[in-house]
Amino acid sequence: MCGIFGIFNHSEASNHTYLGLYALQHRGQESAGIASSDGKRLHHYRQMGLVSEVFTRETLKRLSGESAIGHVRYSTSGSSELKNAQPFVVDYAKGSIAIAHNGNLTNASLIRAELESNGSIFQSNMDTEVIAHLIARSKAKTFVERTIQALGQVEGAYSLLILTEREMVAARDPFGFRPLVLGQLREAPVIGSETCAFDLIGAKFVREIQPGEVLLINEDGIRSFNPFSPKPRHQCIFEFIYFARPDSFIFNRNVYQVRKSLGTQLARESPADVEMVIPIPDSGIPATLGYAQESKIPFEMGMIRNHYVGRTFIEPEQSIRHFGVKIKLNPVKGLMKGRRIVAVDDSIVRATTSRKINRMFRHAGAKEVHVRISSPPITHPCFFGIDTPKRSELIASSHTVKEIQKFINANSLSYLSLEGLKKCVQGEAENFCYACFTGDYPISFPIERLNE
Amino acid sequence: MCGIFGIFNHSEASNHTYLGLYALQHRGQESAGIASSDGKRLHHYRQMGLVSEVFTRETLKRLSGESAIGHVRYSTSGSSELKNAQPFVVDYAKGSIAIAHNGNLTNASLIRAELESNGSIFQSNMDTEVIAHLIARSKAKTFVERTIQALGQVEGAYSLLILTEREMVAARDPFGFRPLVLGQLREAPVIGSETCAFDLIGAKFVREIQPGEVLLINEDGIRSFNPFSPKPRHQCIFEFIYFARPDSFIFNRNVYQVRKSLGTQLARESPADVEMVIPIPDSGIPATLGYAQESKIPFEMGMIRNHYVGRTFIEPEQSIRHFGVKIKLNPVKGLMKGRRIVAVDDSIVRATTSRKINRMFRHAGAKEVHVRISSPPITHPCFFGIDTPKRSELIASSHTVKEIQKFINANSLSYLSLEGLKKCVQGEAENFCYACFTGDYPISFPIERLNE
Amino acid sequence: MCGIFGIFNHSEASNHTYLGLYALQHRGQESAGIASSDGKRLHHYRQMGLVSEVFTRETLKRLSGESAIGHVRYSTSGSSELKNAQPFVVDYAKGSIAIAHNGNLTNASLIRAELESNGSIFQSNMDTEVIAHLIARSKAKTFVERTIQALGQVEGAYSLLILTEREMVAARDPFGFRPLVLGQLREAPVIGSETCAFDLIGAKFVREIQPGEVLLINEDGIRSFNPFSPKPRHQCIFEFIYFARPDSFIFNRNVYQVRKSLGTQLARESPADVEMVIPIPDSGIPATLGYAQESKIPFEMGMIRNHYVGRTFIEPEQSIRHFGVKIKLNPVKGLMKGRRIVAVDDSIVRATTSRKINRMFRHAGAKEVHVRISSPPITHPCFFGIDTPKRSELIASSHTVKEIQKFINANSLSYLSLEGLKKCVQGEAENFCYACFTGDYPISFPIERLNE
Amino acid sequence: MCGIFGIFNHSEASNHTYLGLYALQHRGQESAGIASSDGKRLHHYRQMGLVSEVFTRETLKRLSGESAIGHVRYSTSGSSELKNAQPFVVDYAKGSIAIAHNGNLTNASLIRAELESNGSIFQSNMDTEVIAHLIARSKAKTFVERTIQALGQVEGAYSLLILTEREMVAARDPFGFRPLVLGQLREAPVIGSETCAFDLIGAKFVREIQPGEVLLINEDGIRSFNPFSPKPRHQCIFEFIYFARPDSFIFNRNVYQVRKSLGTQLARESPADVEMVIPIPDSGIPATLGYAQESKIPFEMGMIRNHYVGRTFIEPEQSIRHFGVKIKLNPVKGLMKGRRIVAVDDSIVRATTSRKINRMFRHAGAKEVHVRISSPPITHPCFFGIDTPKRSELIASSHTVKEIQKFINANSLSYLSLEGLKKCVQGEAENFCYACFTGDYPISFPIERLNE
Repeated sequence: MCGIFGIFNHSEASNHTYLGLYALQHRGQESAGIASSDGKRLHHYRQMGLVSEVFTRETLKRLSGESAIGHVRYSTSGSSELKNAQPFVVDYAKGSIAIAHNGNLTNASLIRAELESNGSIFQSNMDTEVIAHLIARSKAKTFVERTIQALGQVEGAYSLLILTEREMVAARDPFGFRPLVLGQLREAPVIGSETCAFDLIGAKFVREIQPGEVLLINEDGIRSFNPFSPKPRHQCIFEFIYFARPDSFIFNRNVYQVRKSLGTQLARESPADVEMVIPIPDSGIPATLGYAQESKIPFEMGMIRNHYVGRTFIEPEQSIRHFGVKIKLNPVKGLMKGRRIVAVDDSIVRATTSRKINRMFRHAGAKEVHVRISSPPITHPCFFGIDTPKRSELIASSHTVKEIQKFINANSLSYLSLEGLKKCVQGEAENFCYACFTGDYPISFPIERLNE
Repeated sequence: MCGIFGIFNHSEASNHTYLGLYALQHRGQESAGIASSDGKRLHHYRQMGLVSEVFTRETLKRLSGESAIGHVRYSTSGSSELKNAQPFVVDYAKGSIAIAHNGNLTNASLIRAELESNGSIFQSNMDTEVIAHLIARSKAKTFVERTIQALGQVEGAYSLLILTEREMVAARDPFGFRPLVLGQLREAPVIGSETCAFDLIGAKFVREIQPGEVLLINEDGIRSFNPFSPKPRHQCIFEFIYFARPDSFIFNRNVYQVRKSLGTQLARESPADVEMVIPIPDSGIPATLGYAQESKIPFEMGMIRNHYVGRTFIEPEQSIRHFGVKIKLNPVKGLMKGRRIVAVDDSIVRATTSRKINRMFRHAGAKEVHVRISSPPITHPCFFGIDTPKRSELIASSHTVKEIQKFINANSLSYLSLEGLKKCVQGEAENFCYACFTGDYPISFPIERLNE
Repeated sequence: MCGIFGIFNHSEASNHTYLGLYALQHRGQESAGIASSDGKRLHHYRQMGLVSEVFTRETLKRLSGESAIGHVRYSTSGSSELKNAQPFVVDYAKGSIAIAHNGNLTNASLIRAELESNGSIFQSNMDTEVIAHLIARSKAKTFVERTIQALGQVEGAYSLLILTEREMVAARDPFGFRPLVLGQLREAPVIGSETCAFDLIGAKFVREIQPGEVLLINEDGIRSFNPFSPKPRHQCIFEFIYFARPDSFIFNRNVYQVRKSLGTQLARESPADVEMVIPIPDSGIPATLGYAQESKIPFEMGMIRNHYVGRTFIEPEQSIRHFGVKIKLNPVKGLMKGRRIVAVDDSIVRATTSRKINRMFRHAGAKEVHVRISSPPITHPCFFGIDTPKRSELIASSHTVKEIQKFINANSLSYLSLEGLKKCVQGEAENFCYACFTGDYPISFPIERLNE
Repeated sequence: MCGIFGIFNHSEASNHTYLGLYALQHRGQESAGIASSDGKRLHHYRQMGLVSEVFTRETLKRLSGESAIGHVRYSTSGSSELKNAQPFVVDYAKGSIAIAHNGNLTNASLIRAELESNGSIFQSNMDTEVIAHLIARSKAKTFVERTIQALGQVEGAYSLLILTEREMVAARDPFGFRPLVLGQLREAPVIGSETCAFDLIGAKFVREIQPGEVLLINEDGIRSFNPFSPKPRHQCIFEFIYFARPDSFIFNRNVYQVRKSLGTQLARESPADVEMVIPIPDSGIPATLGYAQESKIPFEMGMIRNHYVGRTFIEPEQSIRHFGVKIKLNPVKGLMKGRRIVAVDDSIVRATTSRKINRMFRHAGAKEVHVRISSPPITHPCFFGIDTPKRSELIASSHTVKEIQKFINANSLSYLSLEGLKKCVQGEAENFCYACFTGDYPISFPIERLNE
């Protein structure tokens, strides 16, 4: 997954981009980068690591100019190496461009093969590089037209920002897989993956950038294009379930409230006869609150998180994951001794973490451990930007709920139903992508990928 | 504040000390260090930074031997420099000693002046160095006797671990200001500031080390000494209120449960006519849960924390504190728009953070912001190890609750009463130190220090 | 300037490449990189800094495989940034290639413009990237043919190594501007800029790679191609004068001996009535020895070098050059007090260094300071790989020898004559490029470059 | 070995100390440190590494104040750890002191044992710490008197600088083992190990500090004391032979000229029937020039040094010494093929380096390799500051010249005679220490040390 941020025509462009990325750090912790333009040329810096580690006062100073875009990355396409860090910056016949991309193109390898057969060379494994080639090959006269022509050829998920010496383009794919929001800091337009980035810098949220919309930002202001044939929306429901920050407002809703309603619905569907409801911190907290309030069972912070560690889902090193959950979470022993508890989490991927957590609960004295998951079983990989493992590693792709319950050693296990999930985005249920739960991918792509 | 950890006679002594310190990281983030003994000589390494930054696989390898002690530090005595990092290691006539100290000696400067007037030299600003000098000057025959003689001369707070080539001593001052617990990992005795360190390495909690107790650990096993004249217990109540980790068990109680009962009591004393109860994360969560459950007002995680930042109270850099709270916390706008809320926090020190938080709540649309604090007003500095600012910076030392309420712009402000606080440690109320709320210091010291 | 090294089919390919680069460090101190092939894919690592700083045991371990090429760089084309570090690695339709290039293409910007107009994108400023594009665009069947086709389109100086998954190509431009030598380490072919790289790893020198020769190295052995129309040799005479290491054997001669003969010839042409001959260390030593032996004036190491600094000509930071020479050189005061001396150096570029050195000699008490330069005046910039400044900064392009003598405050100044220089490479005088002294460039290129 | 530098009452005290240490880097490459005084308190910073690595602009800025002392270290006493880096800084009853010490105390362990038996603690292994203790224990009234009292108790070699909040003391032991020179930078007194430090900062050399002299520098100017009973001078002859920089002026002579005269004398004593004279760079160059001029055999730089490596004698890592000489030196093959050569070096310690060098010469084709050493055989370890290995590792302590010749595989081997050496410091021969060649130590110390 990735997060992107951009600002145009502001004297502190790089500094604000730094702060924006800081607020979007949860969307990617592997690498961070910023590209800026001083009106004449682009400057850029990118490095492996967290935003706070990558940039120094000095580095930011060298990123001069009044417009900038930034990127935080957790690899979904391309391996974990510096050359795959973004913004991706190239020169071509008409000048320089920097691209920051959140999403995943489904026909990137096809286009790449075609480009290569025509003699193109590639320096990274990122699908983003394909977009740069297509822009460079376009014969259209203006930059925004070249971008539109390029995007007209790619399929899949993209929320992206492109910076040239004098313009910025923001675009969201016609399905609208990934969020992208427009804000304003005094006179300056700002764009980001989530509104939490605006809050930190004190920018005002203006509106969502629409699926299929292309925004051109330059000295003449903002112009909106809708060049692509409209598609049914397929906004990623997983952004609500797990990925986005609860204080963000995306897809026209507040994440915290959607997430809490998942718990409420889950309580209705799958009550539990227990003495306390415990969240798996931190992503599980809002759903757990919904569950607790609906079921009127006391909510307890029975699992304590060590604040000096990262986030399971996102940590790329397999080795540290081993000791993993234990290094991050520890149950409150006194609290649950001899008690029946329900633990609420947002999702189960491989189930190994859940298994370890339940073992910790039992170690801490819990008499019964019931597990409730605030989303349906993940049976299919995501090809639109979420870093799920391949299908064979998704426990729900090959095991029944009963089998999973046994594996994680829970006294009971229930998932939120797909219908229940849809209820929580009432009125817009058909605007979301549920492919990871159903396998109904909105875009066709070579079948081998599904089983790879 | 500081955290200490030790293990004796275990083949993975340094590695376990590393993990123990990792779990105690919340007690000090400024520097970290480990000293080990291979039976013949001591090895040690200490550096500014977090445990995970300070130690590498290679560094730990060089800390060879079957016993080790470690220390994480946030300066309360001595400035923030490498020379003040611990363990403090010296050679003297009888060999080498390493000391890891949590607490603050009240007569250190007196003893230091006396030692200096006799020709002693000092390389650090730490009161811990005084203990080393006193041990070296003792004419007693055994190491434990020398230590007892040294400790007999100092006053104040100390929970400490001392390692020699072949022995380890653990000691807790007669008042018992700081926690210190004994555990066991298979055959090996382990000692730490809090039980959360035991949980991570899978050690069993055995018992608290008693106030005034000196434990000698060597190849013959563990021997307990009680050499000092007994004193009334003065365990630090602030460990319960804020400092210790909620999953720890210290002073014979589970921190989470005490902390939650503070909220319960607070709700009884100072109810609020609001629509939701919001904790200031993360330390405020357990008390807020108590408040919410008692008052039957919905608990909401209305303030979201960025997981990629440290902890206000503990961050030593003034500069980053400026942007501070905003970089760390962001309210959930959708949730509180037009609502009356109560925000529960554990304490107010300078009140500047509270003021900023309330501004954020109002910005997010809250109609009324009531503040409840799960401890009494802090009117006096701590001289026993908690890093409170000097008296003039403690807002409650010079302002009434009404004035503070105005300053932080709250619709109402209530603190937990001292009596209420005592109720929460029922049956043992007289065993705790409340000096930061009352100014009744159990140890006399030069009056100037109070007003410095 | 740059240095390159490669080895094929050796179990310690990366380690030997590391050592080879170490020996070639004098050819470039800005960045270093290695690419290796394990037969299936390429691995590579490159970083700003010295060879010894860039690589660690661990980094080298990850550069697995039995063939490798490496590069040390001091920028002559492309700015001083990581993206311009080499080897340059890309994927294209037929696989991956890594290129390490010493030299400078004179038609790179023309080809780049053409490629860009056809939609190509560029990620670096290096002319080397052009070669990768041309290889990728070739429709030829084998890799070596594609390379030959690509090289057939470029003009200028190149000694280069290209590594694919299973093959290595070494090539030298038809003029033979830069050196390139073939060696053998047991069974494994090794290739490097200079023979000093072979000496360190214990490899045997086999022969020079000929101008216009393309060597294909694969599991079938070594095959030599001569695909280009022959040109008159234009080997860089400046490699002998200054650049190469004196212990190297390049262009079929030992550098030390050529360099010494320059001094001998200089003594014949421009004797000086002095009491001692002093070299400007370290590059000036061999010529000074020649001067001293021929003139029978005592040679003295009257200028002492601080061994903990780099080399003027090559240091890219302007700022440190300021204190520059003084931080590096210091005269032996006692030695030259009241004496007449001649200082021999290999060349004068801007003359600012020479001026400072003479001031130091006079400060140290020298009565007369005569300067002798073991090469003719540099009047024209090099476009074939030597990092000379632009023409306007070359003092000899606009000043007479008399004027320069005055500027550097010498009692007399003489340069080696062009004829004298040619005598020193007797029998092959017509095989060298003297363009920096004459402006007779063997390749035509847009005239603006000359005056830029 | 170590180098020290100090400056008093100059607005750029730390910056100049930095430069002074830079020029003295050859005296120690293991650690570097500076302590400064702003008139009220001392600031200091020390770290493992070269001067250029240890200090940044920022670090130097924090070393504020108008007086400073600095130190570069290669351990002769105390192991290679940060705690043994200097300046050594402590607080005592009368304030703070920083000490920078070059030399080695012969009775340090005796005094330390005595101090420890009185209850003192030690944090380093350095003999310098003993001096700090003795100063702190002195009851004398003024700082200079306390220092004199302390120095009156120690024996051995010391050239040292001590900085307090408002004064500086420079002292040289009565035997005068190590050099120490006084200079002047405008109004400010400067003190350093060698005059090359003055040259870099543009300071004027004033005079040597005399053996047994104690200089007090404060706002009243400079006062000289001669408090100790006079001793015969024992200046370290090895400073001339190898250690000091040739451009320095120490012990009232220019190092280069003394070193060259060693070669002249060596040529007289041990001529060789050869075709060329080759120095082992860089320390061997001046003596080789003397040898060549006297014998009228051509001098050739037949051994080329890689400038990107350190110095054999001083590199503390045993591992890199293995590949060692080869990574640093490479012969000029063309030059010596089939020729008879003499290689001149300054000394032979273990003879393993010499053996490797000769192997390289033969590999390069030399027909005969004769070795001449510009000092007598080293048979005894130094206890006064030079880092020679223990006696059993000194090849000349147990082998005849003939045996050594065989071991290093030389066609002939001659050392300079002791008498010859003395001739080179004519008129002052009795003022030097030759103990490493004779075993006649001027100070008695426990006999076990000799055989350790």
